[in-house]
Amino acid sequence: MTAAVLVNGISPADPLHALAVEDRGFQYGDGVFESALVTQGRVRLLEQHLRRLALGCERLGIPAPDPAALRSDVQRLSGSAERAVLKIVVSRGIGPRSYRPSRRDRPTRVVALYPAPLPSPTTQLALRWCEMRFGRNARLAGIKHLNRLEQVLAQAEWHDDAIVEGLMLDTEGELVSCTSNNVFLVREGVLVTPDLRFCGVLGIMRAEVLRAAKELSIAVSEEPLWPHDVEAASELFITNSVRGIRSATELGSLRWNAAPVADRLRAALDF
Amino acid sequence: MTAAVLVNGISPADPLHALAVEDRGFQYGDGVFESALVTQGRVRLLEQHLRRLALGCERLGIPAPDPAALRSDVQRLSGSAERAVLKIVVSRGIGPRSYRPSRRDRPTRVVALYPAPLPSPTTQLALRWCEMRFGRNARLAGIKHLNRLEQVLAQAEWHDDAIVEGLMLDTEGELVSCTSNNVFLVREGVLVTPDLRFCGVLGIMRAEVLRAAKELSIAVSEEPLWPHDVEAASELFITNSVRGIRSATELGSLRWNAAPVADRLRAALDF
Repeated sequence: MTAAVLVNGISPADPLHALAVEDRGFQYGDGVFESALVTQGRVRLLEQHLRRLALGCERLGIPAPDPAALRSDVQRLSGSAERAVLKIVVSRGIGPRSYRPSRRDRPTRVVALYPAPLPSPTTQLALRWCEMRFGRNARLAGIKHLNRLEQVLAQAEWHDDAIVEGLMLDTEGELVSCTSNNVFLVREGVLVTPDLRFCGVLGIMRAEVLRAAKELSIAVSEEPLWPHDVEAASELFITNSVRGIRSATELGSLRWNAAPVADRLRAALDF
Repeated sequence: MTAAVLVNGISPADPLHALAVEDRGFQYGDGVFESALVTQGRVRLLEQHLRRLALGCERLGIPAPDPAALRSDVQRLSGSAERAVLKIVVSRGIGPRSYRPSRRDRPTRVVALYPAPLPSPTTQLALRWCEMRFGRNARLAGIKHLNRLEQVLAQAEWHDDAIVEGLMLDTEGELVSCTSNNVFLVREGVLVTPDLRFCGVLGIMRAEVLRAAKELSIAVSEEPLWPHDVEAASELFITNSVRGIRSATELGSLRWNAAPVADRLRAALDF
């Protein structure tokens, strides 16, 4: 599975026996995570990932892991990797049988290196609509916490490898994201993306795209979006930190043949 | 922490190193759990707990653990316990870095025995209102899954030991439950409880109370309830499988001095 893993800085003798049963990550999904691309020994957008991780800990009231120790773990695992995915998980740590956090919580820090995924075909990218919805809860919106059953059940809906991703709505019918990508539309020349005020993850690549768009003087808007916005889009692309920017060519009966905005952003980001 | 634990039927050499980093319970909160009271070597309401566990697995598409193996684990840990809490966790098992479940998933089965909690004082029971809300998602409602950040953050709101539990609303303001208890109100002689169609856990003790009430010819109703229903209640009690039925005496400026319905139910259930 993993190429290598460190748990609180230590390589477990047996990776199948690395965590305590009472780790609150396992008991309650009480933690946050990051997934980043590694190329030539360098973690892409590492500072942004570490900032979001710290913000997630703060939002959940989890003591942030020691930055020096975390960076050391990251360097140890990724320093010699040609191309890989680095995953960091921080849980609230081991605790008694109780939802209540303790003031003495000592977070569990897991850093793991995985093989990089195979490149996506660049010419075709088919999406679908998921039945599974995101529940709305502004208190948990934006951060990359470990309560991910909604995405798990959404991805369980299809087994057709030709479908790369699924678009997900929230329970009120608003567009949120894909299962593990953010989504951008082009509407009359404006780049629009869901504002994620109630659910979803504020992706690192999403932020990079918004920043790059401003530098390129492309008008951008973060706002509530709905399925009819997707149907009206002249272009649709999806983003995450491992795969970068990928343009959709197909969604149900919709087809997109050109992606000039995504092409400009991809060139600008060089990801 | 635990008095004893079995992971897939095996007592780990070191309980601090029992689970794989890649267990989907840890990665995504992808699983379900049960907490039951053990007295004199017997798990109270065991059949009901096993049924809910199996239903939760079915709802999440997790292969249910082998019933004979699970019962054997339960018997091994609880058979000689005077008074304890038995916890069962079933996750979807170890998987690759992907939300997508696999058809070859082999669930992880954890059975653990914990010390029984100290008895609650029976004369006073103060509740509070939580700021934290439950998000609505009917697809996840009712089952006792491992995505429990909402309860964790709700319990983090107070540190006053005099407050036993907190009442939680959903994001639309409907009453759902406490953080780890269901809630019942008495309104003009009728026993009412939230219907939990959008969120919350269908508690084993909740079902026992509803069943007992019918046997006692107490009128019952499962329906949407709101804070004004709490304010109008002549009686309020909370229920779970470890603590049974506990009557509230205090919530903000509200006071309840008698609990005739809870008293009848408690006597009938002998829990």
